[in-house]
Amino acid sequence: MADALRVALAGLGTVGGGVIRVLEANRDLITRRAGRPIEVVAVSARDRHKDRGIDLSGFEWVDDTTALARCDADVVVELVGGADGPALALARATLAANKGFVTANKAMLAHHGLELAQAAERVSVPLKFEAAVAGGIPVIKGLREGAAANAISRVYGILNGTCNFILSKMEAEGRDFADVLVEAQARGFAEADPSFDIDGVDAAHKLSILSSIAFGTQPAFGSVAASGIRHVIAADIAEAAALGYRVRLVGIAEANGRGLFQRVHAHLVPNDHPLAHVTGSTNAVVAEGNFVGRLLFQGAGAGDGPTASAVVADLIDIARGEYGPPYAMPAASLADMPAAAEGERRGRAYLRFTVADRVGVLAEIAAAMRDANVSIESLIQRAAAADGTALVAIVTHEAPEANVAVALERLRGSQSLAGEPLWMHILD
Amino acid sequence: MADALRVALAGLGTVGGGVIRVLEANRDLITRRAGRPIEVVAVSARDRHKDRGIDLSGFEWVDDTTALARCDADVVVELVGGADGPALALARATLAANKGFVTANKAMLAHHGLELAQAAERVSVPLKFEAAVAGGIPVIKGLREGAAANAISRVYGILNGTCNFILSKMEAEGRDFADVLVEAQARGFAEADPSFDIDGVDAAHKLSILSSIAFGTQPAFGSVAASGIRHVIAADIAEAAALGYRVRLVGIAEANGRGLFQRVHAHLVPNDHPLAHVTGSTNAVVAEGNFVGRLLFQGAGAGDGPTASAVVADLIDIARGEYGPPYAMPAASLADMPAAAEGERRGRAYLRFTVADRVGVLAEIAAAMRDANVSIESLIQRAAAADGTALVAIVTHEAPEANVAVALERLRGSQSLAGEPLWMHILD
Repeated sequence: MADALRVALAGLGTVGGGVIRVLEANRDLITRRAGRPIEVVAVSARDRHKDRGIDLSGFEWVDDTTALARCDADVVVELVGGADGPALALARATLAANKGFVTANKAMLAHHGLELAQAAERVSVPLKFEAAVAGGIPVIKGLREGAAANAISRVYGILNGTCNFILSKMEAEGRDFADVLVEAQARGFAEADPSFDIDGVDAAHKLSILSSIAFGTQPAFGSVAASGIRHVIAADIAEAAALGYRVRLVGIAEANGRGLFQRVHAHLVPNDHPLAHVTGSTNAVVAEGNFVGRLLFQGAGAGDGPTASAVVADLIDIARGEYGPPYAMPAASLADMPAAAEGERRGRAYLRFTVADRVGVLAEIAAAMRDANVSIESLIQRAAAADGTALVAIVTHEAPEANVAVALERLRGSQSLAGEPLWMHILD
Repeated sequence: MADALRVALAGLGTVGGGVIRVLEANRDLITRRAGRPIEVVAVSARDRHKDRGIDLSGFEWVDDTTALARCDADVVVELVGGADGPALALARATLAANKGFVTANKAMLAHHGLELAQAAERVSVPLKFEAAVAGGIPVIKGLREGAAANAISRVYGILNGTCNFILSKMEAEGRDFADVLVEAQARGFAEADPSFDIDGVDAAHKLSILSSIAFGTQPAFGSVAASGIRHVIAADIAEAAALGYRVRLVGIAEANGRGLFQRVHAHLVPNDHPLAHVTGSTNAVVAEGNFVGRLLFQGAGAGDGPTASAVVADLIDIARGEYGPPYAMPAASLADMPAAAEGERRGRAYLRFTVADRVGVLAEIAAAMRDANVSIESLIQRAAAADGTALVAIVTHEAPEANVAVALERLRGSQSLAGEPLWMHILD
């Protein structure tokens, strides 16, 4: 039996505790699979004396997180979080010390992934981050290795469990966003400050990691057009259902001759698409390859067990010596692909207007669509609500998105509209 | 750039041709991802002069398939098929020659996988077989590596595209098995002799490979209880639909204190289960781990492109040097787990009787169930058909399967029954 893989662990929150529990509970199995034991030798966290229900007495305690890089370990696992600060300092120090680095930190990778990959490759140490995207689902591995024979044209999925939990609950119970958000917060499914999740930032971090691996391009978080689900109302979900769709927050990336396109946006997903059946906090990722066709990976996108499972899978790969360039190819060879213009895309749109209940409203909306050359496939107007407003939901035929934007611009400030229209894309 | 990985290819059918096309079409991308070129240097097939639409002039032609093991290559890819014969001879010769071996041959692995893994490990060469299970879906990798941190309690899925194609077509069009089979054969979705597919043998081969990797047990194809879909009629699918289920051929394996349980059988899958939405020739595999929870892998289970994608993914892993024991742990350490007794299982059952339309039939069936201590959850009797028979469909409460068998045994030979009853399990 080879020597143990010695691990230093930064961060003892739910995931950090989960890693210790996985390594403990499945010790024999992991040793057999890894070909050698995997042992935590040192830990660091904010508060040494907090009761975490874990026996830390066997580990060296390191007060200064960055100092973990200098302890007697082969690999440092970073579960501190944050795009910069201690996490980034630790990553740089670890790689500079010629040690392997495993992280679940999507924000740091979105911002500094390229730098870190180059640093890791310079000294030939592993940098792995399966847990950074879609929790326990081995989708980084699926793209980096499983689909490696393919040119990937498109990668997309449900990347944020909080949003999917909220949307599926709105769908199942006919409730409105704000109401469900409060419950999700109370039950621990959403943060006290939920904006990273519900405004699509978290999904955008993850998407930028997936695109880089799928397309062989430099991580480009800055060019992800991200919006979230704050403006989805119960009526949108009901109208979508009536039309044969479910509403999902979808992160989608495409690479082609027009450049790299990355967007996180609420979508209408057709009922016969696998993503329509992903409910609760489950995540799912689809990759479309030129030979393999459509691959789907689905599972728990968060939680201590699933996320720790992904962290330990990375450690097993490292223990086995089965690792290579983090982004599937040398970081220096990743293409610096320009961002594609959103407006050039064609697609079908769902548009919802809250309108004043008065003569001529429909004519005004219809005229704006016609003038922008957007053809209407279906339109539903629902009777006025108690506040005197009515709802108009439109599904368009395929059209350039720029045209839809023109139509909405024409209607901006109209007295007919009682609020901002909502535009969702329809997944094809 | 490192030296090219030199590949010898045995078998130039659809998948073999696909491998050559993938390597050609995605050459630059594959070279970047693999860190070195992957080049076919020699080929062997039955007929040198058959027009395959592929230029073979750049490859050495080897008449005797087994002789490929001696040509100047690093890896041999076997796409000949067959559990024994030339495929097995080539596998043995290749590993004996200290060369890597990649295969899509599930039958050979089901029968000889342990021997081949031991041979490969003895000389530290790769043995890889992603394409042997579920075509293009990287499920071998998903279990071997992605879920490696988990104790897997259960692995199951839709492993045969032909059966799923037939069942979903029966479902969509209300047609009977025999009728759809003829169409599937005409369209190339089923073999002229379809028994390997429709009787569950092919799925059993694949299941035995999955269980071995999931559970760390020796491949045990001999103990897979396999049956197929021949006896499913349109009415079964209609009754299942009325009850909220779809009919799927599911291969399922469990390992626990009672031993290793492996079965391929037609199941009723609840509509809210992801497998219920897998249609056409798509495959899907679920693994349940003690930390990751439920993972789903879905995609094309057959076809030249997807299968070749999996073969080339194996070659990329080999080119990268990212490979280890084929069954996730050294073959010598795989447990020889005894087969679990089927009858001890508990579950819900769907039972369909074709009955003579006469007094007392229902009473007789109900009495048999009661006497075997099987409680009925729902029962539907449909009016007699033109031939004078009627259909009785029963869903039972959870009960030991042995009890259900007793009930059916009691009814054997009864004058009330116009044919063999059909028993399908209900997936929980």
